[in-house]
Amino acid sequence: EKTLRREEVEALIESDPVFDNSDVYSISRPERYRRAMQKQRRLLELSAEGRAKLLELRRAVHDDLGTDLQTLMFIPNIRATFSDEQRAHWLPRAEAWEVVGCYAQTELGHGSNVRGLETTATYVEDADEIEIHSPTLTSTKWWPGALGRTANHAVVYARLIVKGKDLGIHNFMVQIRDMKTHEPLPGVQVGDIGPKIGYNNQDNGFCRFSRVRIPRTNMAMRFATLERGGHYASKKERRAASYSAMTKVRVEITMGSGHVLSKACAIAIRYSAVRHQGFTGKGDGSEMCVLDYTMQQQRLLPLLATSYAFHFAGATMQDLLARGDAEALHVASSGLKALCSRITGDGIETCRRACGGHGYLDASGLPHLLGTWIQNVTVEGENFMIAQQTTRGLLTLGSAVACVSEIKQTSLEQVSWIPSVFLSNSMEAFWLRRGTFATSALFDVKVSPRPPNQAGTRNQQPMIKPSLTPEEARFFLSVPSILQCV
Amino acid sequence: EKTLRREEVEALIESDPVFDNSDVYSISRPERYRRAMQKQRRLLELSAEGRAKLLELRRAVHDDLGTDLQTLMFIPNIRATFSDEQRAHWLPRAEAWEVVGCYAQTELGHGSNVRGLETTATYVEDADEIEIHSPTLTSTKWWPGALGRTANHAVVYARLIVKGKDLGIHNFMVQIRDMKTHEPLPGVQVGDIGPKIGYNNQDNGFCRFSRVRIPRTNMAMRFATLERGGHYASKKERRAASYSAMTKVRVEITMGSGHVLSKACAIAIRYSAVRHQGFTGKGDGSEMCVLDYTMQQQRLLPLLATSYAFHFAGATMQDLLARGDAEALHVASSGLKALCSRITGDGIETCRRACGGHGYLDASGLPHLLGTWIQNVTVEGENFMIAQQTTRGLLTLGSAVACVSEIKQTSLEQVSWIPSVFLSNSMEAFWLRRGTFATSALFDVKVSPRPPNQAGTRNQQPMIKPSLTPEEARFFLSVPSILQCV
Repeated sequence: EKTLRREEVEALIESDPVFDNSDVYSISRPERYRRAMQKQRRLLELSAEGRAKLLELRRAVHDDLGTDLQTLMFIPNIRATFSDEQRAHWLPRAEAWEVVGCYAQTELGHGSNVRGLETTATYVEDADEIEIHSPTLTSTKWWPGALGRTANHAVVYARLIVKGKDLGIHNFMVQIRDMKTHEPLPGVQVGDIGPKIGYNNQDNGFCRFSRVRIPRTNMAMRFATLERGGHYASKKERRAASYSAMTKVRVEITMGSGHVLSKACAIAIRYSAVRHQGFTGKGDGSEMCVLDYTMQQQRLLPLLATSYAFHFAGATMQDLLARGDAEALHVASSGLKALCSRITGDGIETCRRACGGHGYLDASGLPHLLGTWIQNVTVEGENFMIAQQTTRGLLTLGSAVACVSEIKQTSLEQVSWIPSVFLSNSMEAFWLRRGTFATSALFDVKVSPRPPNQAGTRNQQPMIKPSLTPEEARFFLSVPSILQCV
Repeated sequence: EKTLRREEVEALIESDPVFDNSDVYSISRPERYRRAMQKQRRLLELSAEGRAKLLELRRAVHDDLGTDLQTLMFIPNIRATFSDEQRAHWLPRAEAWEVVGCYAQTELGHGSNVRGLETTATYVEDADEIEIHSPTLTSTKWWPGALGRTANHAVVYARLIVKGKDLGIHNFMVQIRDMKTHEPLPGVQVGDIGPKIGYNNQDNGFCRFSRVRIPRTNMAMRFATLERGGHYASKKERRAASYSAMTKVRVEITMGSGHVLSKACAIAIRYSAVRHQGFTGKGDGSEMCVLDYTMQQQRLLPLLATSYAFHFAGATMQDLLARGDAEALHVASSGLKALCSRITGDGIETCRRACGGHGYLDASGLPHLLGTWIQNVTVEGENFMIAQQTTRGLLTLGSAVACVSEIKQTSLEQVSWIPSVFLSNSMEAFWLRRGTFATSALFDVKVSPRPPNQAGTRNQQPMIKPSLTPEEARFFLSVPSILQCV
């Protein structure tokens, strides 16, 4: 029934000339951007006409739309971090696409180390306003999707400074373009960061602020408040809520990996079934089907199986997201984002190579699939960095298990998605198993064809010595594990 | 002294506005093609002015030129397969760039299986001419570089048919475009095959022939002759000479791999030395240099070492090419092309990811380096296929060693580049060593960080059973080895 419905919506999309992709590989980047905008508008029209739900329609469009981040990051960020009063102001405007936004966190100089962001948001008491400023070249906002051309507002992450005191990174709603002319506002220097290896419908942009004033009430005030006069207060949930949009994208990447890998497998396996190359040896000039070669099967079929595994991993993540357990979601989504994005990226390239020369042509579909996907190995937490969040979570859990021997009593008992087999073992067994832990533990799905690395296990022995601090232990432990797993 | 000279030539190129690459990532494909043509013309001018040798100049230009194949494949093919009389006619014209050519072998339906090519070259006795024809859709010539827009002649590989008898694949000089108007000649349908993941300066093309007549004397007649009236004779060197241009390209790929990988390493390591991310923990807000992270070193430094290894492997190949031993060259270049192209392709991607998000931008240089390089894992013998040529050569050698126990007496004694340690061992040791043979034997350079695969060794045991034919043995042996090595 689901499949029928999906095919129905796909037929609707395919019959509409706005979604025609026949010349998509030969048009220029500005033209690609224009088409993506037309597609987004048509999606909203079809949805308003009641032809299908917006999400159903969106899934049937095989293209990236520069406006996806409106629903994926901008609106969720308003929901998660702005007060009820602020939500009442911004959400209706954003949902009506009057306010088109972007999520401006990463800077030229700082991505993974969020605490190093340099943009300042200084409270000016006299005017009861906040002044957004880019003090250095490296503080230039760099990468935000939809910033380059599309957005008229941005959620800007900046250091809040009140009465000379740095209160850390907070987020602020900043209007960047005129609502009528769409020209940049005074003091805002904004543009596109240029062509990329993929995802070129998307206008990833840069932005510099020269002492741009916004009302004090544009600071996100759900978990932190700044009153007239400069009184500041903050709740402990602030940090988690502040970065929840990034966690959401990690979940999205995990869910998307199975889908994208299955597309690549479908192209490569269908091609291998149709392509004949190499005589059968029967002497009649007949040729072998490429898929009949053992090595072609060994390259492609495990990837097909992996795409199913990722599909179910994604479904489990969706459940976890619905359950709203921020800590478990963070630990699981960090490692899975790294694992799924890496295997899917490498897998698409394997599929591309398995199509021989034809995979080198854009017309095969694989180059664009690859180029657009592999942003995911570095976005929303570079893989080598972000996987350490899972290492950290598992170590905390491991220590807890060792201390109390009963998982029910640990502080992380809600992390019930970790198969109990790993939890019922002693601390020693936990260390021994760590070699394959990161790859196989989360969903009990064995996706890596490599055997446990004995050398890796040996490397972890220094861990038990008490001479290392927990910080050092995490660092050294993560090096061989991550090299093996990520 | 070499470095000084190189820098001198590079300075000459960089000071010339024709070679300006500042907007190279944002211009359209037709514009890229036009610029590449201008660069080629300027190179010839500079060379004619005696500013430097053409090859020196070419190496200083960091771009692909659609005309490279003129000197890399077209002219060498004339030298290798056309008779002295034919050479005297074609070479001066080709060297003066009056005749601009391409190498038209691969068809839509056949690449790796050259014997399956379908284009026909039928001798028409009455007119003493040869009729070139594309009988099926799959017989369309597909991929030849410079065919799409540039070339006015093509060396076409086709089945020679004389008096109804199929004499196998031969090559023919076919004019495809008018020498004045550059319009396709009657019966020739020709064009560009479209955008690719890289190498987009190059006009890879397609071509169909509808009973196009050429003089009988346009057949390459160095090692095969077709006389007026249809008398045909062929020498045994014909086949090797016929595909020598492909071997030359494989050598070129091996030589290029070290160069390209070193470029990628230079970008990523320099970036890692400049980029700071993550607090040092000193509490003064200072950050770690990215290159100081163990995992960054583990990702990049072995690749830097590999680029040196490939440089010396390339130099050895150049010697082998100069020595002119076709058999040894074939065995060595096949395996090395597969090994070096794969490790370099994966290595560039590792470098790209090691630059975090910035590696995703075209401006980092890495996306274009990657896209253009990875054609090499599938061109001139798809890697999984072509590596079997080396397996085959080594097995022949292995059998010879087992039979006579003295390498000097084998028929392949000239293959002196195989380290003697492998040759002085018994047959049994040969099998045991095969696991790492393909990766490490050729130049005694250990490039793969993986330990010998014991499982792989076990898989090879059925080999010794006499129930397998040599063909089957090669096939089964190559599957696990190639999966491990290529």
